[in-house]
Amino acid sequence: MPVLNRIAGYADQMKGWRRHLHSHPELMFDCHQTAAFIVERLREFGVDEVHEGIASTGIVAIINGQGEGATIGLRADMDALPITETTGADHASTIPGKAHSCGHDGHVTMLLGAAKYLAETRRFSGRVALIFQPAEEDGGGGEVMVREGVMDRFGVKEVYGIHNAPNVPFGKFLTTPGPILAAVDTATVTLRGKGGHGATPHVTIDPIPAMVSLVGALQTIVSRNAPAQDVLVVSVTQIHSGSASNIIPEDAWMTATIRSFTPEMRDLAERRFREIVAGQAASFGVEAVLDYERGYPPTVNHPKQAEFAAQVALEVSGNVDPDSPREMAAEDFAYMLQARPGAYLFLGTGPGAGLHQAAFDFNDEAAPIGASFFARLVERALPA
Amino acid sequence: MPVLNRIAGYADQMKGWRRHLHSHPELMFDCHQTAAFIVERLREFGVDEVHEGIASTGIVAIINGQGEGATIGLRADMDALPITETTGADHASTIPGKAHSCGHDGHVTMLLGAAKYLAETRRFSGRVALIFQPAEEDGGGGEVMVREGVMDRFGVKEVYGIHNAPNVPFGKFLTTPGPILAAVDTATVTLRGKGGHGATPHVTIDPIPAMVSLVGALQTIVSRNAPAQDVLVVSVTQIHSGSASNIIPEDAWMTATIRSFTPEMRDLAERRFREIVAGQAASFGVEAVLDYERGYPPTVNHPKQAEFAAQVALEVSGNVDPDSPREMAAEDFAYMLQARPGAYLFLGTGPGAGLHQAAFDFNDEAAPIGASFFARLVERALPA
Amino acid sequence: MPVLNRIAGYADQMKGWRRHLHSHPELMFDCHQTAAFIVERLREFGVDEVHEGIASTGIVAIINGQGEGATIGLRADMDALPITETTGADHASTIPGKAHSCGHDGHVTMLLGAAKYLAETRRFSGRVALIFQPAEEDGGGGEVMVREGVMDRFGVKEVYGIHNAPNVPFGKFLTTPGPILAAVDTATVTLRGKGGHGATPHVTIDPIPAMVSLVGALQTIVSRNAPAQDVLVVSVTQIHSGSASNIIPEDAWMTATIRSFTPEMRDLAERRFREIVAGQAASFGVEAVLDYERGYPPTVNHPKQAEFAAQVALEVSGNVDPDSPREMAAEDFAYMLQARPGAYLFLGTGPGAGLHQAAFDFNDEAAPIGASFFARLVERALPA
Amino acid sequence: MPVLNRIAGYADQMKGWRRHLHSHPELMFDCHQTAAFIVERLREFGVDEVHEGIASTGIVAIINGQGEGATIGLRADMDALPITETTGADHASTIPGKAHSCGHDGHVTMLLGAAKYLAETRRFSGRVALIFQPAEEDGGGGEVMVREGVMDRFGVKEVYGIHNAPNVPFGKFLTTPGPILAAVDTATVTLRGKGGHGATPHVTIDPIPAMVSLVGALQTIVSRNAPAQDVLVVSVTQIHSGSASNIIPEDAWMTATIRSFTPEMRDLAERRFREIVAGQAASFGVEAVLDYERGYPPTVNHPKQAEFAAQVALEVSGNVDPDSPREMAAEDFAYMLQARPGAYLFLGTGPGAGLHQAAFDFNDEAAPIGASFFARLVERALPA
Repeated sequence: MPVLNRIAGYADQMKGWRRHLHSHPELMFDCHQTAAFIVERLREFGVDEVHEGIASTGIVAIINGQGEGATIGLRADMDALPITETTGADHASTIPGKAHSCGHDGHVTMLLGAAKYLAETRRFSGRVALIFQPAEEDGGGGEVMVREGVMDRFGVKEVYGIHNAPNVPFGKFLTTPGPILAAVDTATVTLRGKGGHGATPHVTIDPIPAMVSLVGALQTIVSRNAPAQDVLVVSVTQIHSGSASNIIPEDAWMTATIRSFTPEMRDLAERRFREIVAGQAASFGVEAVLDYERGYPPTVNHPKQAEFAAQVALEVSGNVDPDSPREMAAEDFAYMLQARPGAYLFLGTGPGAGLHQAAFDFNDEAAPIGASFFARLVERALPA
Repeated sequence: MPVLNRIAGYADQMKGWRRHLHSHPELMFDCHQTAAFIVERLREFGVDEVHEGIASTGIVAIINGQGEGATIGLRADMDALPITETTGADHASTIPGKAHSCGHDGHVTMLLGAAKYLAETRRFSGRVALIFQPAEEDGGGGEVMVREGVMDRFGVKEVYGIHNAPNVPFGKFLTTPGPILAAVDTATVTLRGKGGHGATPHVTIDPIPAMVSLVGALQTIVSRNAPAQDVLVVSVTQIHSGSASNIIPEDAWMTATIRSFTPEMRDLAERRFREIVAGQAASFGVEAVLDYERGYPPTVNHPKQAEFAAQVALEVSGNVDPDSPREMAAEDFAYMLQARPGAYLFLGTGPGAGLHQAAFDFNDEAAPIGASFFARLVERALPA
Repeated sequence: MPVLNRIAGYADQMKGWRRHLHSHPELMFDCHQTAAFIVERLREFGVDEVHEGIASTGIVAIINGQGEGATIGLRADMDALPITETTGADHASTIPGKAHSCGHDGHVTMLLGAAKYLAETRRFSGRVALIFQPAEEDGGGGEVMVREGVMDRFGVKEVYGIHNAPNVPFGKFLTTPGPILAAVDTATVTLRGKGGHGATPHVTIDPIPAMVSLVGALQTIVSRNAPAQDVLVVSVTQIHSGSASNIIPEDAWMTATIRSFTPEMRDLAERRFREIVAGQAASFGVEAVLDYERGYPPTVNHPKQAEFAAQVALEVSGNVDPDSPREMAAEDFAYMLQARPGAYLFLGTGPGAGLHQAAFDFNDEAAPIGASFFARLVERALPA
Repeated sequence: MPVLNRIAGYADQMKGWRRHLHSHPELMFDCHQTAAFIVERLREFGVDEVHEGIASTGIVAIINGQGEGATIGLRADMDALPITETTGADHASTIPGKAHSCGHDGHVTMLLGAAKYLAETRRFSGRVALIFQPAEEDGGGGEVMVREGVMDRFGVKEVYGIHNAPNVPFGKFLTTPGPILAAVDTATVTLRGKGGHGATPHVTIDPIPAMVSLVGALQTIVSRNAPAQDVLVVSVTQIHSGSASNIIPEDAWMTATIRSFTPEMRDLAERRFREIVAGQAASFGVEAVLDYERGYPPTVNHPKQAEFAAQVALEVSGNVDPDSPREMAAEDFAYMLQARPGAYLFLGTGPGAGLHQAAFDFNDEAAPIGASFFARLVERALPA
C-alpha cells in the first residue's frame, strides 16, 4: 500500500487532532498545551525518544528505523497569531485574540500523521528527528532551536519543512532550488526638528520637507543601486507627522519593509538606507534616529535537497512545480537551512481565505498529503 | 484730567469685571452669560441704546455725544477658547475645557471701561457704537455681524479694535498702515491609491511616493511662484499614511496652512495648490480629494485711520510703533475693515504666557490703557 | 576529423579575411565593400546561391546539403561603428571615424569559415542559409531583412547568431533559454516654461523644478511599479537646462534609456513614463514634449533551440553556460527570433578592451571556434 | 536761473560727450580712453584737482566751493558690457563685442555736466569729489576705489549715485531708505559620481538622482528657512549632465543665483546651501564641489541721505517716488555706501530697450536732469 493510502486512513483522526489544536491556539513561545498534546500523541505512536523544553516549548522526537543510517529532520511550527477568528467554525478558536490563522495547526497535524506512519512502519534505516518549534511568527523560535543545538545534538543531516498555501491548486507542491522566501528587514526612522507655528516656518526646523526628501531618496536604492536582475523591495509603509493644521510638528516618523534574497542585497539596502537617512538629516538639519532591524534571513533551499523533495512531492501528489517563483514573505525555517541542507515546500490547499486573515481555516483534506510527503521522503532518503 | 487718569480710577472696578468674565468663559456664538453681563454694565453706565441678539449673542450699544456728528465703531470680541486653564488663579475658569486664553475678557473690559467713561463725560459730538462680537475664534462672528448689517444699521463711519499682546513691552501700541494680520486658508488633501502588501508594490498604487512628490512640489509655490518681495507662507503641517510596517496603505492625507496678505497671493497660492495636487495625482495614478478652505481674509488697516490711531495711542501711552511688522495670524475684525475704514492695534501687556496657551492670563493693568485709547480716540475723532 | 580541427586549419586564412574587413569598416547600410568581399569569398567556396542587395547591402547565400531537409539560418552582422580606432594595430581601420569596435568583422569571418567548411564537406541534409546583415548598430538591418522576406523566401526554419564577448573566458559560450538581451527604448523629454531673470522667478515658469520633480517621479517606475522579480531599468542619462548663472531658462530637456525583457515591462514603463511626464508638466504649468522611441525588442531565445545550441557549444568548446545571466544590451537579431525559432549565444574571447571602446580589437583566435559552432550545429540539426 | 535751466543749456554739448563715449566702449578696468576723455573735459572745466589711476583707470576730481565745508562725493561708473550693439545708431559702438548697453556713458555725461556747472558757478561751500569708477559690471571697481582709500584720502563725507532706468516715466526719480538693490551671490555645484552604461546603474554612482534631490532640497531655503516677511531668492539657473542617451554620466553641475537684502539673509542662504549640498552629496555617495561666491553686497541707502536726495530730486524734476520698491539687481556702489552715508537713485528715461539688451541706448534727454540733480544736491548740502 503506498504511503498516501495508508495515511489517508488516518484522515479522521488527523482532522480530530487538527481541530483540537485549532480550538486552542497559543502564541509565540507559550505553546504549553500544544506541546503537551503533541507529546501525548507521540507517546501513543510509540516514538523512541521525546525531548521537550527546547526553545521553551519546542519538542524533538526521534523514531529509529530498521538499521544504522543518517538522521532526517522534519519540522512543523506550532504557534498561532494574535488575531480574533471569524470563521464561525465549530472548532474555531476558543480564545479571543488568538487564532491559528496561518495553519500551523495543520503543519503540526501533518507531522504527527507522518510520525504515526513512520513509528508504525519503520520502513527506513537511520533515524527521523521530528522537530516541533514554537514562535515562528516573528519570534524566531526556529533560530532558538538551532542555537540550542538541535541539529548537532540529534545529528540531523538534512531538514525539510512544509507550509500550506491557500489558493494554490489543492495538492500541488511548490518549491525551487535557491531562495524560496525572502529576508525581511524593517526600518523605523524618526526625524526630530523643532516645532512651531505654521505661520513662521523660519523659526522652526520643519521635519516634513526632510521626511519627503528622505522618502524620495530612498526610492533610488531600488531604482539605481540594486542590480536590475537581482530582487530588492524597499517599501515605505508609514509616514506620520503632525497633529494640527496650523502647527509645524516637531518630528516625523516612518517605517519601511525591506525584502531581499541574498546577503549582498540585504547589506546593500541597509548600507544605502543608513547613508541616505544620515545625508538627508544633515541636509535639513534634523536629528535622525534609525532603527534598522534585521528580521529573518532568506529561506534558501539547497539545490540537491530541493530537487529530491520535488521528486518525492511528484510521487506523492503527482503535481509539483520544482522551479516555482520565489515568495517575498519570510520564514524562520531559514535558520534551519542555514544550519543544514534541506528544502522548504508549499502545499496547495485550494480556494479559501488567505494566510493571516481572520476568516482563514486550514483545509483538513491537505493534512494527509503533507504527512505522506514527509513519510515518503524519509523512506526514499533512508532506504531500508 | 486726561482720559487715562480718569479711567485709571476705574481700575479696580475693571479688574472685577475682567476676572468675573475670566471665570465664566463661553465659546463661539454661545456667549449668553457674557452678553448678559455686558448689557447689565452698559445699562448701569447709562448708554443710550442697547441692541442685543446680533449674530446670536452679539451686542451693539450706542452712546450719543453732545451734538450731531459721525458714528465711530469700537469693537471687542467676547468668546473664549476650548482650552483647560492651568493658571491656578483665584479667578481661573470655572469650566473645564473652556478658558479666556486669548484675553477677550480683557478686550470686553477695555470697551466697557471706555463705555463708562464716554457715557459719563460725553466730550464728543456724534455717536459711539460699542460693538461686542462673539465667535472670533474660528467662528467668523465679526463677519456675521457685518452681514447682519451692523455697519449700515448704526451708520458706523469708522471702526477700531485692539488685541492684547503678551511679551510686547507693557503699554506699547503696535499698528501699521495696510495689512496687519494675514489671511489664513487651510488645505486638506487625501490621496487614494490601492493598498497591498509591502512585498509587492507592483500590485498596489502606493500613495506614499505620490504624497512625498506632492509635498516637494508644493514648496515651489513659495520658492518659485510667489514674488520674493511679497509674503506667502505654505506650510504642510500634517502627513499621515499607513498603519503597519509591512502594509502599503491605501491612502495618505495631509494638511497645509496658507497665509498671505493680499488677494493676489491668496489666489496665486490656491491656483497653484490646485494645479499641483491635480498634476501630482495624475502623475502617480492616485485619486486626489482637495478641500481648500478659505479662512479669514487679511486684516487691512486703512492708512489714514491707522495713522490717526497711532497718534491717539502715542498720546495715551507715549509708546507706539506706527509701522510695526505684520503678524501672520488672522482675525475676523478683517471683515469689519472690509466694510468700513478703520484700524487694528496691538497693545503690549508685558511678559507672560503667550496667547492660546493654557497658562495665559490677561494682564489687568493693561485694561485702563486700552479703555483710554478707545475713549480718547472718540474725543479726537469727534471733537465736541 | 572533428569540425573544430578542420576549421582550425583555416585559421590563417580567416585571420586574413578578418583583418582585411577590420581595415575597411563601413557604417549602417553602406556596407558595399564588405558585401563585395563576402560575395567574392562565398563564390570561391562554391556556395550554391548568392542573393545580394537584401536590406540594401545584405546577403543571403545558400549551401545545399546531401539531400532534402530543412533550412537552418546562420547570421552575421557586417557593420562597424562611428568610432576612431586607437588600437595602433597594423590592420587598424584606414578610415578615421569608423572602426569595427564591436567585432562584427569577426562575426562575418566566423560565418565565412563555417561557409567554407560546409560548402566543402556537405555532411548534412537540407540547406544552410548564410545571412549577412548590415546596420545592426542602431539601424535595424536585421528587422529590414525580415521585413524583406528573408525567412519566408528561403524557407528558413531556425536561425542562430553569435556575438563575441571580451572579458569572458576564451572559448566559453554563454546562452540561456528565454530573453538573453534586452529591449532598449529611448525617451526624450523637453519641458518648456517661460524664461526670465534669476532674480524674479515669479514672472517665469521655471522648468528646472519641474524637471527635477519629473526625474524624481520617474524613479518610482522601477521602485514601485515594476515587479521586483521582473527586470526593468529606467536610467535618466542626460539633463540639460540653462546657459547663464543669472537667467532662469525657458526650457529643460532630458533623455532616458529604458531596458526590459518582456512586452509587459516595456508597456508598463512606457505607460508610466507618459503618465508621469504629463502629470508633472501639469503640476508645474510647463509644456512637455515627449518622444518615446521604441528601439530593438528583447532578444528572446527559444528554449528548445537554446538548449540544442548549448549542446553544440559544449561539444565544440567544452565550456558553456546554458543558463547565463541576461545582458541588458540590445541586438536586432531580436527580429529574426521573433520570425523564427532559434538562439543567440555569446562567445568569450578572453581579456581585452570592451565592446564599443576605441581600443577594441576582435580576438582572431576565437573565429575558428565560432565557425566550428555554426558548422557543427548544422551537422547536428540536419544529420545527413 | 535754476540749475536745471543752466544745465539744459549744455544739452547739445553733453549729447556730444555721451555719443563719443558710446562709440568707444571699454570693459572692466581697461577704461583708458574713457578716462582720458573725462580728464580732458575736467581740465577744460577748470576743476581744481584731478587724480588719475585710482583702481587702475578710475579718477577723482575735486572742485572747491566758496569756502570751508564738507566734501560731497558724486559717483559715475565708466565701463561698458561685452555685448554687440544692435541699435544701428550713428553713434553706435565701433567695437564689436563691446557696447554701453547699461548706460554708463550717460552716467559719466551726467557727472561731467554737473562738474561743468559746479566749476563754473561754485555756489557752494566745501568741496565736491567727482568719482569716476571703472569695472562696475562684475569687476568691483567701486570696491577697489574704496579699498584704495578714496573716501579717506579726499575726506568724502557723503556719497551719491544715479542709475538710468528705461521704462520708468521720463524724469521720474526712484529711491528708498534702506536697501534699494540686492546682494547677488552665485553658487556653482559639481556632483561627481561614477559613470557607466545606462543599462547597469548598480555599478555606477549616478549623479543625476543626487542632483535632482539637491535642487528639490534647495527650494526649502526660501520656502521654509527664510522669514516670509524678509526677501530671499534662490534660483537654480542651470543643470547640466550627460552626453549620450545610453550613458550614465560621471558628473552633473548646476549654478544658482542667490539674492538678498540683508546680511542675515545672505548668511542664512549660504549656510543652508552648504548644509544641503553636503547632506545631499552624502546621501547619494557623490563627491560635491561647491563654489559659493559672494558678489556685491546689498546697496543700502542711508535713511537721512535718501530722504534728502528725494527732496533734491523733487525740486529738480517734480517727480520722485521716495519709497520705491527695491530692485533685486546688484550694484557695486554698495561698497561706497558701506564706507560713507549716502543714497542711490534711479532716474527714469522713458520707453525703450531694457538694460543689458543689445538694442539699448541711453536717452540723451535724461542727462541734463541727472546732472542737475547732482549739482543741486551739492548746492543744498553745502549751502554757500
